Amino acid sequence: MDDPETLAERVRAGDLRLHELDDHADPETAAAARRAVVARETGAEFDAVADYAFDAAQASESAVENLVGGTQVPMGVAGPVPVDGGAADGDYYLPMATTEGALVASVNRGLSVIRGAGGATARVTKSGMTRAPVFSVDGVAEASEVVEWVGDNADALREAAESTTSHGELLEVDPYVVGDSVYLRFVYDTKDAMGMNMATIATREAAEVVEAETPASLVALSGNLCSDKKPAAINAVEGRGRTVTADVLIPRDTVEERLHTTPEAIEEANTRKNLVGSAKAGSLGFNAHAANTVAAVFLATGQDAAQVVEGANAITTAEAREDGLYASVSLASLEVGTVGGGTKLPTQAEGLDVLGLGGGGDPAGSNADALAEVIAAGALAGELSLLAALASRHLSSAHEDLGR
Amino acid sequence: MDDPETLAERVRAGDLRLHELDDHADPETAAAARRAVVARETGAEFDAVADYAFDAAQASESAVENLVGGTQVPMGVAGPVPVDGGAADGDYYLPMATTEGALVASVNRGLSVIRGAGGATARVTKSGMTRAPVFSVDGVAEASEVVEWVGDNADALREAAESTTSHGELLEVDPYVVGDSVYLRFVYDTKDAMGMNMATIATREAAEVVEAETPASLVALSGNLCSDKKPAAINAVEGRGRTVTADVLIPRDTVEERLHTTPEAIEEANTRKNLVGSAKAGSLGFNAHAANTVAAVFLATGQDAAQVVEGANAITTAEAREDGLYASVSLASLEVGTVGGGTKLPTQAEGLDVLGLGGGGDPAGSNADALAEVIAAGALAGELSLLAALASRHLSSAHEDLGR
Amino acid sequence: MDDPETLAERVRAGDLRLHELDDHADPETAAAARRAVVARETGAEFDAVADYAFDAAQASESAVENLVGGTQVPMGVAGPVPVDGGAADGDYYLPMATTEGALVASVNRGLSVIRGAGGATARVTKSGMTRAPVFSVDGVAEASEVVEWVGDNADALREAAESTTSHGELLEVDPYVVGDSVYLRFVYDTKDAMGMNMATIATREAAEVVEAETPASLVALSGNLCSDKKPAAINAVEGRGRTVTADVLIPRDTVEERLHTTPEAIEEANTRKNLVGSAKAGSLGFNAHAANTVAAVFLATGQDAAQVVEGANAITTAEAREDGLYASVSLASLEVGTVGGGTKLPTQAEGLDVLGLGGGGDPAGSNADALAEVIAAGALAGELSLLAALASRHLSSAHEDLGR
Amino acid sequence: MDDPETLAERVRAGDLRLHELDDHADPETAAAARRAVVARETGAEFDAVADYAFDAAQASESAVENLVGGTQVPMGVAGPVPVDGGAADGDYYLPMATTEGALVASVNRGLSVIRGAGGATARVTKSGMTRAPVFSVDGVAEASEVVEWVGDNADALREAAESTTSHGELLEVDPYVVGDSVYLRFVYDTKDAMGMNMATIATREAAEVVEAETPASLVALSGNLCSDKKPAAINAVEGRGRTVTADVLIPRDTVEERLHTTPEAIEEANTRKNLVGSAKAGSLGFNAHAANTVAAVFLATGQDAAQVVEGANAITTAEAREDGLYASVSLASLEVGTVGGGTKLPTQAEGLDVLGLGGGGDPAGSNADALAEVIAAGALAGELSLLAALASRHLSSAHEDLGR
Repeated sequence: MDDPETLAERVRAGDLRLHELDDHADPETAAAARRAVVARETGAEFDAVADYAFDAAQASESAVENLVGGTQVPMGVAGPVPVDGGAADGDYYLPMATTEGALVASVNRGLSVIRGAGGATARVTKSGMTRAPVFSVDGVAEASEVVEWVGDNADALREAAESTTSHGELLEVDPYVVGDSVYLRFVYDTKDAMGMNMATIATREAAEVVEAETPASLVALSGNLCSDKKPAAINAVEGRGRTVTADVLIPRDTVEERLHTTPEAIEEANTRKNLVGSAKAGSLGFNAHAANTVAAVFLATGQDAAQVVEGANAITTAEAREDGLYASVSLASLEVGTVGGGTKLPTQAEGLDVLGLGGGGDPAGSNADALAEVIAAGALAGELSLLAALASRHLSSAHEDLGR
Repeated sequence: MDDPETLAERVRAGDLRLHELDDHADPETAAAARRAVVARETGAEFDAVADYAFDAAQASESAVENLVGGTQVPMGVAGPVPVDGGAADGDYYLPMATTEGALVASVNRGLSVIRGAGGATARVTKSGMTRAPVFSVDGVAEASEVVEWVGDNADALREAAESTTSHGELLEVDPYVVGDSVYLRFVYDTKDAMGMNMATIATREAAEVVEAETPASLVALSGNLCSDKKPAAINAVEGRGRTVTADVLIPRDTVEERLHTTPEAIEEANTRKNLVGSAKAGSLGFNAHAANTVAAVFLATGQDAAQVVEGANAITTAEAREDGLYASVSLASLEVGTVGGGTKLPTQAEGLDVLGLGGGGDPAGSNADALAEVIAAGALAGELSLLAALASRHLSSAHEDLGR
Repeated sequence: MDDPETLAERVRAGDLRLHELDDHADPETAAAARRAVVARETGAEFDAVADYAFDAAQASESAVENLVGGTQVPMGVAGPVPVDGGAADGDYYLPMATTEGALVASVNRGLSVIRGAGGATARVTKSGMTRAPVFSVDGVAEASEVVEWVGDNADALREAAESTTSHGELLEVDPYVVGDSVYLRFVYDTKDAMGMNMATIATREAAEVVEAETPASLVALSGNLCSDKKPAAINAVEGRGRTVTADVLIPRDTVEERLHTTPEAIEEANTRKNLVGSAKAGSLGFNAHAANTVAAVFLATGQDAAQVVEGANAITTAEAREDGLYASVSLASLEVGTVGGGTKLPTQAEGLDVLGLGGGGDPAGSNADALAEVIAAGALAGELSLLAALASRHLSSAHEDLGR
Repeated sequence: MDDPETLAERVRAGDLRLHELDDHADPETAAAARRAVVARETGAEFDAVADYAFDAAQASESAVENLVGGTQVPMGVAGPVPVDGGAADGDYYLPMATTEGALVASVNRGLSVIRGAGGATARVTKSGMTRAPVFSVDGVAEASEVVEWVGDNADALREAAESTTSHGELLEVDPYVVGDSVYLRFVYDTKDAMGMNMATIATREAAEVVEAETPASLVALSGNLCSDKKPAAINAVEGRGRTVTADVLIPRDTVEERLHTTPEAIEEANTRKNLVGSAKAGSLGFNAHAANTVAAVFLATGQDAAQVVEGANAITTAEAREDGLYASVSLASLEVGTVGGGTKLPTQAEGLDVLGLGGGGDPAGSNADALAEVIAAGALAGELSLLAALASRHLSSAHEDLGR
């Protein structure tokens, strides 16, 4: 087998293409050859990128093509925090991979306050991964027939869909008609898997039944009513992946001593910023920075980074009660898994191990549920910390005003 | 100075807290101590996480707190592709860090087709980083006065804002009134920096002028009309960071030979899925999976992963013309920088070097513009590749239908 | 009983208030007295307003308080047009009350073209009036219990809800959790009634069961997930009232001769304006002016004018096929009734009679279904007419370009 | 000239079409003939519809085609209420035409409470009627040139646009690019006219300059970024017509005595329903029923009923302060005029006279501003009344709970 430089030379000579290198060398050598090619053409050096800790073969098979090495994102931990969840139970350290300075400190501070208040409560209130193919029909009369057929043949669709998976269950199929397009939104219980692949494969099988039994013709296996990696109201309203809420009641003196502000000031900041400000912005995200926590834990635990998009569909509430501050974060569409995808890579698997949530749960689905609940607790901490920073600044400013 | 195990013991004994370790050890030792603490409490092992290639001190200072190590994301390259941009000019390899198998291959295939068509054209059509503080006033009469004052005192606000930065320029201040809340959306040219920090610091200074000169009282430096890391229409409509479009005209025979489908079939898939399907979903993202490319290049080049949210505000168009397929992707709010933030980390800096876009551009801002244009070209490739896969499947299915 | 002037004098003297006049005079006299009061205070004259044709007693009882007279909106008719619907069947004249010049002519032209193409096809593909109370709970743990209880007690809720109505049926109850708020979206089949009142009364009864059997406490009988008279994605996605589509295939030569343009030009205008333009505008309405037809027929037939808001949640598609132009309009949330509310007023009842759809249908619900289908056909006509006007102008401009 | 029956016979014989009747008879006779035709074909009777009070010629010329008569909507009055506006000044009775029982009473009750609190304050904080044509270009390079040209040629566009109008002023032109489509959003000050026609005509002229001077080709004079009669975020965020807020501070004891609830209970209902509930619904309308007031006053004063759609883009806030309840309604896009359109019809003109706002204001624009402010005050009253009803029910329910 050729060495990287020789292979790189063949690419430069036009004899091989970058992605064909895998056919002529082991993954590690192929990656080295690609680095040589790209370095020569762009002048870039790959000292750090080449210094990766995963197995090139594993990465090439499951995660990336045209491998050249690894991007390293600093990982910190926040916590621990007690989470009383439907699945989560106990104290958790949150692994967070990020390049945004102050984020881990902010979440850590929030978690510390939550811990002081006895921990967060969290629940997954809805769950289901979706795939929504679009079919073309002749017109609305035919569309109407297809919708009726789907309503009458739930069993046939379920049988077809579930024939492709040992774990997944088809929960429902919701039809939507727009002119001569029919969208069928399939919703699955995918247990501990994030479930996009499972849902796609199962839906392909079911779609073939629809095509065979009705006049509908499949145009695209995803018709964007799923909706994956796009900021869509259908996800914010109906949920996708896990719909999860975390909340906490923080005693008044804890708010004052630890967050240097009052429940009332936090409620005001939340109302004017997260509720009214987001309303005026035409937003689907009524929170301060939930996506920050979502992104950092997603990276640290091997979730799909592009699904941070749906993770931002979150509503934060803050309410001054007599006995303190009630605060909550409700994430409508948090798409997480503890098996498959990026969770198998070494650093990501270690991230999940920090949470004790790697691999399949018992019962099935409970690890992914717990992961969602812990992320929600982390997002809640981030919200509290940022709102408190805003509110305490506001307060001190108000104090200065009074002092004039 | 103590060794990691001794330090870990002190944390376990309650003598030190995790984040205080930095005061008692160098960053690398502190990270090792944290790993020891967390490993003991959770049973997790940190073999891969501990094997990081960046400087612990640099990471601790700028990117993360409570450092324990690094998350490694496999990096591949796609391309090269010629991009004729307002700033981008030449052939580019796209560095992509991802755990989603098939993504790099898909983008690579799309870029190859674009290259075959002579390359992509791209332009940044609007640019500006925003920060929108919310102020409280007594009521709408006062709100109206504040709005008027802001209109009359643009110079004073600019002077205050720009006093905090050597590069940034305040472009405009747009007021929004809701009841007794006034939101001022400050828009800045932040050159090659993504610019959130610059915008925040400058806006804080300007907000003090507003507070001093009007009855308005600052409630929160961000009032969510910015809107950062939330899926908000204001970004999709008015833009944030770079508003950038990439397009290409692919000859008909290239579509048929390379993508195994027709311009008409791609247009139909795009219309039913990306336009009508997204419309029905109540979406702000009218694309197939632009966020995938955005996320992967963001990770590889040190951008803020949570800003993938805004990166998903993209519209894809596909139009069968007589001479082939016209396709475009317009990203409304792509927040990128080539200086500051995560761009300084070693693997990320090397990612930018692959593009030849590390550091400040000449003229200032041109590197970030070019980065936006290249990402847009990559997103376009991803869209083409996925739409073609859908459309060719559709076609083959149609062919089978005919064969029955 | 006093005459109007004497009564007016008593109001002016502070002895009576405007709304108390009904207790001291018959409705007609009370209205006259109010006109006298208002005329004196404002200088307005009420010649035309006083010249109303309905029964003051009926109007005062069911439609308006503080009656002073009537507003008269000119009514025109468009059509006739054949509609092949799930419920509609035959030729219909569309009664339209409007003050917008050219609207009736535009719809009439569109209907004429549709008639020339053999008529419109229409179907109600989903139906259900909603009411969504919001309850407060202690936190997410309690919220989760309530959601579970609701899932387990569908029968009890149905029994309670349906105990209040002889016609309505409770179809489903969908729970949504945000922090310590639980929203239950009740969906009813309200037959030929628009159904808001029926849904409200039935839901009140069911809400009492929820309060009695769970820890939830009712905060508001409408929690805005209904969502009535607001532009909300939940309606655009999931529907409210009737979800209805009308479509037509217009032969190519009809497009050319009657609309003076081509299927391709109409498709282009529709794509750039209704699809891409609306996408960029962050819209829930992907149409040209569906609300115009909805508003005019609503007024002419006694529907609720404020529900024009939801009537605008419509998507228009236009597709050049080999044999002509396929066009459709899908209205997601058209809230109509043929009994109750304003339908009982004389001019409005006559408007419904023009359609032959006054009163309850056989089977129940079929008249309201048919009304929805006819309105959809009218909206389709309006879309076609406007798109054709745009496209033909474009074409002629293109011709001029060629002529240069 | 023929009598109605003879004319109707000619229509039935196919000799004439409905809309051609105007060429063969005076408007009144033509309307009678149409009634005869439609009555014969549908069996409908036109007793009430035929009994209209406007001039058939005027209605036929400006408001409707194929006139058959009038729809009569009961009109009530609410108020009076003092409004301290930027333009409004004094006490106003609100004319409301509606078929929704209890609406006028509800608004009247709210206005009474506002009056008791000293009246409402209101301000138009932004103003501008828009029209946004869409142009096609070759691709993004050309789009970029067009955007640049527009930026450099504001004067030429203004000159062209304003050449068509004696009153209107072009305020700004905002460009938006999506692929090969360029949208230019023209914003006008249209003074006391609602301004759609003025804006359309002016924009047509300006668009011709764009076509003449750039490679852009006009596809549609409205490209839906205007956005007229659609529920679009661009209007909710940036405004269209008048952006107007009304607010009031109601003393605590007034809330308790008149509304039978507390500021805190109203704030809670508003937060859970109008803010959080609307957020979860994916709404652009964060209010209880602002559209009701908007629709009723629009009908009574000759506004465009289909523009109730944009009138629903409203945010209601409620805040318990120490001294009482602060409440506000901010309508982002209230499109009103006091000249032109339906305002000239007799009952509608009388409706405007009730407000003292008929015709052009002095200075120009002040009447339409005042109308917007008064409608906002009315909407505020409706919100207060409904929120109080919800909150007091809640309270009584809470009391019962305590009593158990």
